[in-house]
Amino acid sequence: MDAAELDAADPLAPVRTRFVLPDGVIYLDGNSLGALSGGVGGRVGDVVGRQWGEDLVRAWNDDGWWQAPERIGDRIGALIGAAPGQTVAGDSTSVQLFNMLTAAARMRDGVIVTDAGQFPTDGYIADSVGRLLGRQVVRTDDPYQALSRDGVAVLAWSTVDFRTGRRWDMAGLTAAAHDAGAVVLWDLCHAVGALPMRVDADGVDLAVGCTYKYLSGGPGSPAFGYVARRHQAGLDLPLTGWHGHSRPFAMEPGYHPAAGAGRARIGTPPMLSLLALDAALDVFDDVDLDAVRAKSLRLGEFFIAGADEAGFEVITPRDPEARGSHVSLRHPDALPVMAALIEAGVIGDVRPPDVLRFGFNALYTSFGELAAALGILRDVVTSGKYREPRFQVRATVT
Amino acid sequence: MDAAELDAADPLAPVRTRFVLPDGVIYLDGNSLGALSGGVGGRVGDVVGRQWGEDLVRAWNDDGWWQAPERIGDRIGALIGAAPGQTVAGDSTSVQLFNMLTAAARMRDGVIVTDAGQFPTDGYIADSVGRLLGRQVVRTDDPYQALSRDGVAVLAWSTVDFRTGRRWDMAGLTAAAHDAGAVVLWDLCHAVGALPMRVDADGVDLAVGCTYKYLSGGPGSPAFGYVARRHQAGLDLPLTGWHGHSRPFAMEPGYHPAAGAGRARIGTPPMLSLLALDAALDVFDDVDLDAVRAKSLRLGEFFIAGADEAGFEVITPRDPEARGSHVSLRHPDALPVMAALIEAGVIGDVRPPDVLRFGFNALYTSFGELAAALGILRDVVTSGKYREPRFQVRATVT
Repeated sequence: MDAAELDAADPLAPVRTRFVLPDGVIYLDGNSLGALSGGVGGRVGDVVGRQWGEDLVRAWNDDGWWQAPERIGDRIGALIGAAPGQTVAGDSTSVQLFNMLTAAARMRDGVIVTDAGQFPTDGYIADSVGRLLGRQVVRTDDPYQALSRDGVAVLAWSTVDFRTGRRWDMAGLTAAAHDAGAVVLWDLCHAVGALPMRVDADGVDLAVGCTYKYLSGGPGSPAFGYVARRHQAGLDLPLTGWHGHSRPFAMEPGYHPAAGAGRARIGTPPMLSLLALDAALDVFDDVDLDAVRAKSLRLGEFFIAGADEAGFEVITPRDPEARGSHVSLRHPDALPVMAALIEAGVIGDVRPPDVLRFGFNALYTSFGELAAALGILRDVVTSGKYREPRFQVRATVT
Repeated sequence: MDAAELDAADPLAPVRTRFVLPDGVIYLDGNSLGALSGGVGGRVGDVVGRQWGEDLVRAWNDDGWWQAPERIGDRIGALIGAAPGQTVAGDSTSVQLFNMLTAAARMRDGVIVTDAGQFPTDGYIADSVGRLLGRQVVRTDDPYQALSRDGVAVLAWSTVDFRTGRRWDMAGLTAAAHDAGAVVLWDLCHAVGALPMRVDADGVDLAVGCTYKYLSGGPGSPAFGYVARRHQAGLDLPLTGWHGHSRPFAMEPGYHPAAGAGRARIGTPPMLSLLALDAALDVFDDVDLDAVRAKSLRLGEFFIAGADEAGFEVITPRDPEARGSHVSLRHPDALPVMAALIEAGVIGDVRPPDVLRFGFNALYTSFGELAAALGILRDVVTSGKYREPRFQVRATVT
């Protein structure tokens, strides 16, 4: 089928109208910052003008602000296979990682094993936690091999590699970690919203994830943490902010964490960003993540086929089971190529030193856009246009 | 002078028009959640609709998102007496406290001394840091006495006590800490925006503060951290998120912190909340904090005189030098009294077990409002109206 036929047959095509996408742009960077959906602006306007402006401090009760981290956490939980009461929204991914990894390491003696190719923050935080707790941190490309050594306390791993788009088998790797006596902390940043997960059914212990990528929660929208119910009562978190206290308004001098996942709350959350995320999640209310995944894989297949045909080196696994929702190409001049592409209206991003990254959000990416993007990419590279001086290095942001 | 005369003579009276305050409410809880100023709604609308919606990921460069934590930090720095390049906005106060207190304790061997009466999060975080680093945490009401013992590594203290409104002498206590060989970490939450400070001139080492109280940055708007320039190159922070890296887009496996205060950045900040704060700070552009402080003290004096006359127990120091910008009264039925007050249109809050708290923001609080509030307070208490069943306990939020 060609792109037009694939779009005509796409059951998710109507969902695109829920998003506000600018004219003249093919947006393939929703894996970095997801697009704005139509309901967000009005909701944020109400939060600012009415809730904050008129209700003032009463909004913590009257508008449900106090409950928002757990209420919104449960909405995210529904997208990762978590029953209610185990997921909390708030803080950045880096902060969530620090909090959860420290608590994970406190559950077991031994080393922290983490993925060598992961997003940098995960490694930096692992090193910091290892130093604070006096634990060795082992980086590896082969988690199964690493788990075969004695004394692994925690396996901290990313479901989808941010650079290559490789997807790992959460059920299998979680089981292997448990067999080795380790607890597992999954980083779901590049997976949540793009593919169904089953954290409860897979026996996941802890997880964190980002909400501004495939969940389209807005720039820097709060991350989330998942704590399996069986671990909640004993979870020993280092970021003991007053929102995680069992009686926050008693304002006691000693910290007594809340009984449930609420203990993963820290300080006062950034409500405008948090409630923008809440509005953004409405898009998912009637969307089947199996359909999202099916389309995402077809988009990837379509893009890989076009990249193959044009002679690009594809570094993303071709096996659909081993692929997330972005495809990466290797090119020695990745930065100027991407700068030229962006000028031509195709927005992806670059991961150093030489990776061109294209993300597909099945809720708003069309096959027609991928066909056009591939044509422009081919043109930019074969014409040598990217060598023009104005396409020199500029920063891009994940 | 009576209230009308004081309002007529108030040079800051015109600033009130910059705020959006609902009719029928006397708002004396701006020390918990500051009021909305008129420019915020439009700015947030632009950030959502144009910057996020149209510029998409390009906004990190084109709209200056990447620089925002340091740019906005410098705006806050100007309000606390910090030269540019030492203040960074982001994350909650709890997270800032954890990060800065850990780094402070890593500068010196010895115990962590902190105030016994402080806001709960400060104590919870001190205990957590003490445990991670193997340090004793000493809580005291008398910091000078505590500093006289050997081996104090850090004095972590609040400029204004959240409960009593007592203000501490930052210059004197900083000097005493330095004389004892300790570094000082100030919590500016209940001071910033309400009174001038001189962190550079006073030789402060580190500070954190809240932006949703007197700075009126919006619910949960990001906190800030100050790092004196002399400490920046060696500051050893535990929250090693990728935004604090010297070359964040190189995405290197090892953490190499930025040279300046930027190393106090952690993960991706909540941009909607952060840029609402940016807009809120516009109110301060042409405001003299000495004038704010002068009016704040007159408001306090006026309120204390009225409370005295009505026979209330005032627990806030009467000495202007020792007072912040809120006044607290003790009443055994504080919760129902406040519930009845709120129903009658006077919004303050309660701090357990028995403290009625009234905050004055000199930018929008008038003497006329205080006179009216005192009358309503007297009526609620002398009539015994607060004993009606509907005024039973309800949560309030700082």
